[in-house]
Amino acid sequence: MNGKFIVVEGLEGAGKSSVIGLIVDALKNAGKSVEQTREPGGTPMAEAIRDCVKHDWDEQVSEETELLLMYAARVQLLTNRIYPALESGVWVVGDRHDLSSQAYQGGGRGVSPDTMSAISHIALKGFKPDLTIYLDVEPAIGLERARGRGELDRIEQSGIAFFERTRERYLALANNDDSIRIVDAMQPIKSVHNDIKTLINNYVVGV
Amino acid sequence: MNGKFIVVEGLEGAGKSSVIGLIVDALKNAGKSVEQTREPGGTPMAEAIRDCVKHDWDEQVSEETELLLMYAARVQLLTNRIYPALESGVWVVGDRHDLSSQAYQGGGRGVSPDTMSAISHIALKGFKPDLTIYLDVEPAIGLERARGRGELDRIEQSGIAFFERTRERYLALANNDDSIRIVDAMQPIKSVHNDIKTLINNYVVGV
Repeated sequence: MNGKFIVVEGLEGAGKSSVIGLIVDALKNAGKSVEQTREPGGTPMAEAIRDCVKHDWDEQVSEETELLLMYAARVQLLTNRIYPALESGVWVVGDRHDLSSQAYQGGGRGVSPDTMSAISHIALKGFKPDLTIYLDVEPAIGLERARGRGELDRIEQSGIAFFERTRERYLALANNDDSIRIVDAMQPIKSVHNDIKTLINNYVVGV
Repeated sequence: MNGKFIVVEGLEGAGKSSVIGLIVDALKNAGKSVEQTREPGGTPMAEAIRDCVKHDWDEQVSEETELLLMYAARVQLLTNRIYPALESGVWVVGDRHDLSSQAYQGGGRGVSPDTMSAISHIALKGFKPDLTIYLDVEPAIGLERARGRGELDRIEQSGIAFFERTRERYLALANNDDSIRIVDAMQPIKSVHNDIKTLINNYVVGV
């Protein structure tokens, strides 16, 4: 692969959007062609799957259904956009990827590690991002920020304990993987952005 | 479980709909409460997933995406309709179930047996129908009948070789599982219906 896949992860209200904008600008300044993705979604079919998984259904949405839909959308995005972009030398900046499923469905919902690893293997066949930036924020702070933006979707309504478990899993996975960098997103926004700029500039120089 | 789950399987144009009507009537005559399902679909969320998987998308639909969506819809139907019905003593007659994925995705699309078995285990946790009736028809005959009904959907447009592989897998699985009965759906319709009536009446008496 000629391009690199950089993913921004974190709870609702962690500040992913502004960080993604910053990364895209930094990469363009470094002369890279850049494409942006968001998950679930990013192709017409994957966006339809996103609508399905985010909708507030008047029926029990099983953990397995949510998990299978997340990976269905992910495979579509990989096949139709991420793989072709990376192969043609384009860098891809992703708003969420596999780590979100590991944290939200594995940590938050409590889907077993065996199930998580089996389905991730079926869908991704070992593919992983080159660099993941995890924006760490306490759920209470993140959700307060997200609420300020408007109504919360079905998953965002899951309650604080769900997000505590999700954050714990994020941190545990990040601490065990050199390709995942933790950035403290509870700092003043200027400090967060300085951390990101340093991190990205060092990464671009290093590859 | 107090109710029984009876599934009708077969290629497009095998005559599933009329056979299902017959089975439902026979069960009602035998004093059973009966509910009908179809897959993929059967709940509002599962029907939305069905639309997603059947739509003729202007992008490559990966085999894994199709597979994950089929099982996502299946879990919703199981959780919200099949389990509750069976538990309350209602018999369920299903238009397709897991055997369709095994035959179409496993046989037709060539998804590996390991993947098929892993995902089926994640989604169904060992659940299987009490009785499956596989209506066997040569693809050329079935597709000719299906074409007579109108436009074919994305999966039905997959070509004759796909359906030959699907039929082979159906027959191989049916020959290895006592709970799957093969009915020759290329006979005159009267003979097919007589076979079904005998089969169902014997089954109801036997349980």
